Amino acid sequence: MKGISILGSTGSIGCNSLKVIEHLKEFRVVALAAGRNMPKFAEQIAKFRPQLVSVDDQDCAETLERALHKFGAAVPKIELNSNGLIAVATHEEAKTVISATVGAVGFVPTLRAIEAGKRIALANKETLVMAGELMTAAAERSGAEILPVDSEHNAIHQCLHGRGRQEIRRIILTASGGPFREMSAAAIANVKPEDALRHPTWRMGRKITIDSATLMNKGLEVIEAHWLFDLSSDRIDVVIHPQSIVHSMVELNDGSIIAQLGGADMKLPIQYACSYPDRWEAPVARLDLMAVGRLEFHAPDLQRFPCLRLAYRALESGPSHAIVLNAANEVAVASYLDEKISFGSIPRVIEESMDAHSAVAVATVEEVREVDRWARLYSQNVARGLELKV
Amino acid sequence: MKGISILGSTGSIGCNSLKVIEHLKEFRVVALAAGRNMPKFAEQIAKFRPQLVSVDDQDCAETLERALHKFGAAVPKIELNSNGLIAVATHEEAKTVISATVGAVGFVPTLRAIEAGKRIALANKETLVMAGELMTAAAERSGAEILPVDSEHNAIHQCLHGRGRQEIRRIILTASGGPFREMSAAAIANVKPEDALRHPTWRMGRKITIDSATLMNKGLEVIEAHWLFDLSSDRIDVVIHPQSIVHSMVELNDGSIIAQLGGADMKLPIQYACSYPDRWEAPVARLDLMAVGRLEFHAPDLQRFPCLRLAYRALESGPSHAIVLNAANEVAVASYLDEKISFGSIPRVIEESMDAHSAVAVATVEEVREVDRWARLYSQNVARGLELKV
Repeated sequence: MKGISILGSTGSIGCNSLKVIEHLKEFRVVALAAGRNMPKFAEQIAKFRPQLVSVDDQDCAETLERALHKFGAAVPKIELNSNGLIAVATHEEAKTVISATVGAVGFVPTLRAIEAGKRIALANKETLVMAGELMTAAAERSGAEILPVDSEHNAIHQCLHGRGRQEIRRIILTASGGPFREMSAAAIANVKPEDALRHPTWRMGRKITIDSATLMNKGLEVIEAHWLFDLSSDRIDVVIHPQSIVHSMVELNDGSIIAQLGGADMKLPIQYACSYPDRWEAPVARLDLMAVGRLEFHAPDLQRFPCLRLAYRALESGPSHAIVLNAANEVAVASYLDEKISFGSIPRVIEESMDAHSAVAVATVEEVREVDRWARLYSQNVARGLELKV
Repeated sequence: MKGISILGSTGSIGCNSLKVIEHLKEFRVVALAAGRNMPKFAEQIAKFRPQLVSVDDQDCAETLERALHKFGAAVPKIELNSNGLIAVATHEEAKTVISATVGAVGFVPTLRAIEAGKRIALANKETLVMAGELMTAAAERSGAEILPVDSEHNAIHQCLHGRGRQEIRRIILTASGGPFREMSAAAIANVKPEDALRHPTWRMGRKITIDSATLMNKGLEVIEAHWLFDLSSDRIDVVIHPQSIVHSMVELNDGSIIAQLGGADMKLPIQYACSYPDRWEAPVARLDLMAVGRLEFHAPDLQRFPCLRLAYRALESGPSHAIVLNAANEVAVASYLDEKISFGSIPRVIEESMDAHSAVAVATVEEVREVDRWARLYSQNVARGLELKV
């Protein structure tokens, strides 16, 4: 039995991960970290009996203990906050760490897991966006494998299946196009959060769903792909594919394109990231292409969806710009979800923050954090200036 | 430089093979065999200067010599007929043999090349349909690799890329559906050869174009796939895909589907069959999925296209039935192209011949030939009974 830890176990990826593990005899949950959803976390702990858990703060820990007592479940060791996340990420019995927290919080714990030589099933794309160079260099030193859980990068990994970098001409990330794919620029500018939260094909968390609607999610994935597959931005293309059946593609040097297809079920890439290089039966519905009938592909519109353009710009401007892009995006999306700024202001917050930033070296955790802190403060100011009149 | 021989160099696959070789510095043509198109063959010989060539008969040899003199080209050693084909297939300097003759004539020469341990780039699907067991057993003994050139099987080979048989749930061969994809059964029954010869996506030889129109080509491919990938008929599916962009797919045991996509250019699979396990830049146009825009998939209609159903029946009935299917199909298609029988009579000739056959062992070349001879005679009789009144 292989030990497994999960950072972010009560989120969408975390819950799906536990469903996958439940059906696999090969894995045992040794440590779990969750944020603030204590009722669900208590259920998970009662069922999977990890040795160690981590929560946000002492209040959460107390709520959790009460909930566990109610279930009649044993209370595991509970640690708090970022120390807790790191303890879960580096638990000595964990061979595999599923990194599935949302946003920047997963950065240091994931880095520590990489340094400890764990297999990382990476669902937290912000981690690579903020610190791709640090992460990949650490993985090279420790021998840690980073396996992407994002369906697109997981698809690329499956398509490559050991093919060498010299065989790759380019990769093609598919994007559903989000709920506003066919909406005019003027209408997009003022869409409400409740509409933006209705993703056409995938059910996900709130932040990533907004990122999908702005296409920033695809932009972050372009940067993520750069680090995972060591490709320059001109070799990473994006194509809009509304059906989300082709999860991504690789064009090889002879012109052949290899694609991975599947249903909209994250359990498949999660299991692959755990089972690789093996492949096991998975608890997912079979894809019936004849029932789908039709797959469509068209070019993304960078005018209506400037976030994708900004992500390419960040990738070309160097690693510290990607940190600014990511931080400003987190700030802008939070502000949008709080109904303080309009949907159309999200890219403005990001672009103004990037404009104000001059590239700096980000070779250490402290340097990464410094840029991240600056970008959050700066973009909060920008967002305040764009606040809607009530 | 690796030596290469081509069986059927003046056909569609043969010509494309020479275009591929022309641009590859790694290969040198050592022997060529062609049927009756001597002007084109003379051109090829003048250009590629093989040491040995083979033609159908003495008349062809003399025509060829005259044509070569006209070009001022040296005359290589010329051999005749099946002995000549075997000499080309087993030329000692040939490491790779492209088997691209049409129909049953390529069977023994290809078998001899397999026995000699050559890499076989196999475009002659009838060979495996007639004698899959013999061929694959011989390849196992000699260590010969059989790499499919058919775009569908080549796609499967690319999708598998070394994945083990235990990972495969099923393979999905795509079919364009041919020119009569949307025609009623009654109208299909009486289509003229000039219409049947207009394939919607691929430009190929006459016999294979008719086989595409009847879907027998896909049926032969199902049988070919059985031998190439060691899968039972219930794990080989066919899906109609009119755009012919997805060349075929593999469903893996976790439900993931890997597909290979490309343009309608046989140079890509030919080069792959020669270059594998390497992959080189290829002289083919890049596929622009956004320009294609849409890929469609639907189920094949076995009522309107009974040849596909007959092929599955042959595969389930045992190897000697596949020989009958193939022989009767060759007879019926020739008779149809001579405008002696209707399009709708092609499956009738095949089905009546299969009905009249009882399974026998086909473990030797002689046993294969015996069934083939019987089936040709029998199906000629059936075809005569179905001849159109003039």
